Amino acid sequence: MKTAWIGLGAMGWPMAGHLHERGHLAAVWNRSDEKARAFTAEHEGVIAADSPAALAASVDVVCLCVSADDDLREVVAALREGLRPGQVVVDHSTVAPATARELAEDLATLDVAFVDAPVTGGVEGAKNGQLAVMAGGDGQAVERVRPVIDSYARLLHHLGPSGAGQSAKAVNQLMVAGIAEAVCESLALMERLELPREPMLELLGGGAAGNWFLDKRGRTMLEDSFDTGFDPKLLVKDLRICDHLCREAGFDSAVLAQALGDYERLVEAGETGRDISALFRHK
Amino acid sequence: MKTAWIGLGAMGWPMAGHLHERGHLAAVWNRSDEKARAFTAEHEGVIAADSPAALAASVDVVCLCVSADDDLREVVAALREGLRPGQVVVDHSTVAPATARELAEDLATLDVAFVDAPVTGGVEGAKNGQLAVMAGGDGQAVERVRPVIDSYARLLHHLGPSGAGQSAKAVNQLMVAGIAEAVCESLALMERLELPREPMLELLGGGAAGNWFLDKRGRTMLEDSFDTGFDPKLLVKDLRICDHLCREAGFDSAVLAQALGDYERLVEAGETGRDISALFRHK
Repeated sequence: MKTAWIGLGAMGWPMAGHLHERGHLAAVWNRSDEKARAFTAEHEGVIAADSPAALAASVDVVCLCVSADDDLREVVAALREGLRPGQVVVDHSTVAPATARELAEDLATLDVAFVDAPVTGGVEGAKNGQLAVMAGGDGQAVERVRPVIDSYARLLHHLGPSGAGQSAKAVNQLMVAGIAEAVCESLALMERLELPREPMLELLGGGAAGNWFLDKRGRTMLEDSFDTGFDPKLLVKDLRICDHLCREAGFDSAVLAQALGDYERLVEAGETGRDISALFRHK
Repeated sequence: MKTAWIGLGAMGWPMAGHLHERGHLAAVWNRSDEKARAFTAEHEGVIAADSPAALAASVDVVCLCVSADDDLREVVAALREGLRPGQVVVDHSTVAPATARELAEDLATLDVAFVDAPVTGGVEGAKNGQLAVMAGGDGQAVERVRPVIDSYARLLHHLGPSGAGQSAKAVNQLMVAGIAEAVCESLALMERLELPREPMLELLGGGAAGNWFLDKRGRTMLEDSFDTGFDPKLLVKDLRICDHLCREAGFDSAVLAQALGDYERLVEAGETGRDISALFRHK
């Protein structure tokens, strides 16, 4: 299935790389052209398109992996004139469910399906092709793009109409943030009590407190290393989406209030471009 | 190594069972005698002792698995006159580090080693012999009882002097409680948003939000089933120990404050004798 890719960031780059390995990737486009050139230099046979519209012309599927709602709207607007009926646009960005619904309605007028398909599994999951993908939109469109998504994911579920994937991601991010709070605070207490790090990490991870974040970020945060991972700025964006959903649903979330407050303060303190485990330094 | 066991609750019963399988278990005692009789009826060759002191007489090691600090003090006082120099008392209960230090000092006057060795891994870990054990006390005593603990644990680490095991457990319980908050609240939001349960559980568990509690309790809590697991009353006890430690250390924990408040309210609402995942019903 001929696929084009837009957005070669920390997640998009390795995801597009897996797509290339499976022989699905025809062309890429990135806001900063250098990254697209670097990608095509490393991945033989892939073209760097001059514009999103040019990119769309020759493929069956266009995958997007950008940052925020406005970036996504801009890219879809630029893509629009190159799209043809029957194509599918798969969006792996994390945005508001309402944005996904808006874009799906817009592209439906062109007879193009829009699938909201945010991912979880971190940069590790992107690199080893083991992401979990939460899809909303037309079920048949989701099944059509399954071979594409299977290139970088080990799990893909269709959860409902447009926006359902993004609603699911908001739930996921609330859980991620609450766990980050619990782990960062517990490890800070562990340090305060002067308990030995290595055996503690093994014990905490080996029982009822075991979790992905501790497993992947516990050791690095204790070593004061926060280079790999998920930018606190992006988590704040995701939690604001979740906050909006909670308000709409009349759902009061104490975990969200605490995590959003803490991560907003973290970003204000200049802790961006690092991993969310940097919260540990402020506990 | 001849071992005696005191405390045949939800954790103690299966742990003692593994000890019997490995041929280490000589005798048991339990506050309610019926349980001890039921245990010996099911486990051939094990004696139900008439008192803790009688139990201690003929073994090398006495393992304890009771609920709270006062229960532990009472049992150790009753055990005291039966103890002989060179024996080791291993306590798997979760109590305050100060209680562990107090009992270790007391038994040291009899030349008996006291190892604080709280566990994590839940009833599942106890049943399948895969617990993680956090030990404090004399390092040589910990090594001597390793073959006993290996019967029901897959991890045992010596973390420092008397009380270190209990301090580690307090850190573990803070993480457990914070994760329970995050998972219960996220799943409540998931229900509010009417997202489909089965695919959601698989997706949430398969990415960066993955954790033991979701894996073991996610499905049951959605089915309104809270029979298996860890009593909220015991978590409140553990979090109060953690709260005391935090105050002593001048450590301010927002995660603890929220979890302790929520679980105290849960117990007040009558949600005892159930699993801590019952918090889901109140989110």
